[in-house]
Amino acid sequence: MKILVVNAGSSSLKYQLLEMDNETVIAKGNCERIGIAGNITHKTADGRVVEEECPFPTHTEAFGRVVKALTEGDGKVIDSMDEIKAVGHRVVQGAEVFDRTTKVTDEVIQKIDDLQELAPVHNHPHALALWACQKILDKNVPQAVVFDTAFHQTMPEKAFMFGMPYEIYEKYAVRKYGFHGTSHRYVSSKLAEITGKPLSSLKIVSCHLGNGSSITAIDGGKSVDTSMGFTPLDGVLMGTRSGCVDPSAVTFVMQKLGLSPSEMSDFLNKKSGLLGVGGASDNRDIESKGSSGDKNAKLASDILCYGVKKYIGSYAAAMGGLDAVIFTGGIGENAALVREHVCDNMTYFGIELDKALNKTVHGEQTLISVGKTEVWVVPTNEELLIARDTKELFGL
Amino acid sequence: MKILVVNAGSSSLKYQLLEMDNETVIAKGNCERIGIAGNITHKTADGRVVEEECPFPTHTEAFGRVVKALTEGDGKVIDSMDEIKAVGHRVVQGAEVFDRTTKVTDEVIQKIDDLQELAPVHNHPHALALWACQKILDKNVPQAVVFDTAFHQTMPEKAFMFGMPYEIYEKYAVRKYGFHGTSHRYVSSKLAEITGKPLSSLKIVSCHLGNGSSITAIDGGKSVDTSMGFTPLDGVLMGTRSGCVDPSAVTFVMQKLGLSPSEMSDFLNKKSGLLGVGGASDNRDIESKGSSGDKNAKLASDILCYGVKKYIGSYAAAMGGLDAVIFTGGIGENAALVREHVCDNMTYFGIELDKALNKTVHGEQTLISVGKTEVWVVPTNEELLIARDTKELFGL
Repeated sequence: MKILVVNAGSSSLKYQLLEMDNETVIAKGNCERIGIAGNITHKTADGRVVEEECPFPTHTEAFGRVVKALTEGDGKVIDSMDEIKAVGHRVVQGAEVFDRTTKVTDEVIQKIDDLQELAPVHNHPHALALWACQKILDKNVPQAVVFDTAFHQTMPEKAFMFGMPYEIYEKYAVRKYGFHGTSHRYVSSKLAEITGKPLSSLKIVSCHLGNGSSITAIDGGKSVDTSMGFTPLDGVLMGTRSGCVDPSAVTFVMQKLGLSPSEMSDFLNKKSGLLGVGGASDNRDIESKGSSGDKNAKLASDILCYGVKKYIGSYAAAMGGLDAVIFTGGIGENAALVREHVCDNMTYFGIELDKALNKTVHGEQTLISVGKTEVWVVPTNEELLIARDTKELFGL
Repeated sequence: MKILVVNAGSSSLKYQLLEMDNETVIAKGNCERIGIAGNITHKTADGRVVEEECPFPTHTEAFGRVVKALTEGDGKVIDSMDEIKAVGHRVVQGAEVFDRTTKVTDEVIQKIDDLQELAPVHNHPHALALWACQKILDKNVPQAVVFDTAFHQTMPEKAFMFGMPYEIYEKYAVRKYGFHGTSHRYVSSKLAEITGKPLSSLKIVSCHLGNGSSITAIDGGKSVDTSMGFTPLDGVLMGTRSGCVDPSAVTFVMQKLGLSPSEMSDFLNKKSGLLGVGGASDNRDIESKGSSGDKNAKLASDILCYGVKKYIGSYAAAMGGLDAVIFTGGIGENAALVREHVCDNMTYFGIELDKALNKTVHGEQTLISVGKTEVWVVPTNEELLIARDTKELFGL
């Protein structure tokens, strides 16, 4: 039984076709430069690759090309779209409107589009892709939306409210939403599965570290706090994002540089983080610069690792305990040095890394600690969880 | 041997005259409404009170009136200012220029004034008061400046840098400075004295909770991290200050409300915090509203207590351990409910409050816990530390 997973951005449309009988990927690809020019890269599980320049004026043409890539030509993996039993879409922002995976209807798409103010970069493109799929796919193929924020809707009010006047929350929905929920949910469930312990008994800090990073406190399978906030800007230092900054520094820098709010938002989202402090947005470049003696690159890495370390402590306090720490995401799965620095001098929390083992782990699911609090590398798989959610929602 | 301590604000000048032989207060008072109209309240240790309306065009007239109050009339406590061996001034912002208590010279005053951009509300008035004292006092009376920020100058770079481009730090000195340093230093030293343990061996989280609040990680007597930041806005929720807020929420609210950077700074400093969320800036009012079933007041208190709790955990991680937690400041010393909620469900950190005892403590130095990690109420005394510093600096 096949499910298609779609992850649309403003100018891109990523997809994966999964065989759910054995939870494997049959084919995956990406349509890029939608609205600008257009090209598709399509790869099949058996190693075939299709790359083509083709104009994508909108997400509709891009999705049409995906259908063609799956059903025709060199990258063909199915005879017809009828073989696809359901489609699952990733949506970044569900706000307080959506606290779970939801069946797509015209009304649901409209509501997602209405939330675009809270996620300007993401939600409108998601809606465009959803309309495109509605247009092209047979009406009988059910579609589901899986929200990055939904997992965090269990946070208590004390964790999601900022200290601003209450009406700012009531009128403008300004609060902490949290993101990467699908990833945090996936790796925490996976951990329970691996260790054979019931998720309901575990206090987990999940560290999704990648180009964007977020740390989540998961108590008994529920998100009780998370480091990303109103948007994915807050929390720890990221590739180009600042993470948390004294709000008075925000207004001070705006005055100094003469920036408007949206320019300041760009400054904090695109010119800060590892890039702004250390001169490179990719952690691999930061590590290589750092090992060549670049002080600012070393500092950028230190700020990141120290930030993650402090979140682990703060979430142990929030949950009143700590059973396991998970590293996932591009950096979490691959950057042994980041894991080592985060876990350094954490025996107080029962965290003792097997440093030699840790150095050898690059993306493989592995227990990398010897202490009472288990530290795991668990590769994330958001697409699989979206597919599973979709399957479950429609009873397939 | 007598030392005068001066704490000047933009329109006020507080003072205490201390007898350092037995570290007691001889007289204290406050000149208010400087530049507006003027009144002085002067109290002596033996219970005499002088209150008078008198015009204070500048800090110079106010300081002149202090001299008169100390040496003449109903509140007289000394025959002449010659009896005062030194003066110690509180200064909020010393930035990276001043990492310790410093002898006042014209150049030092100028440097303090030059830092006014980093502390617009405080540093210029401090400079005005310093010039006034220079003018009125005999040149032979040595004066010292004690900086709120100096204690935190030991923070490592990874703790004080924000994730913004490095040149923002280089060009505009935007970094975490931390405040309440004199208070955190006083109570941590006091704790070592009370317990008879060497300060160098202790990992302490000091919670100064008042109208302004800050939490500090003190490892071996040195501040290694603190919750206030570039200005005293960051960290936990305060009386009218927001504490930390996702920087993207700052720019979003500015757009929504059409606020300029300085208006937004006012909004976050004066209309937020307990007041903005819970409808009252004083924690006593918040508690009374909360106990009458006011949900927002309850929420405001919850955000504060949860914030402090998370800082304790995060600083245990920063220090790799935790020996003691100190509560001080107006709320920390008096609000038993806040202490109880902060310490609730913290046995993981060895924190177990003696709840019955805690309820009875209002400002008295007391061990209020029974667990491995000691929790203390330690009344702060910034004026005494300023006087001690001044005495020590001049070898008196």
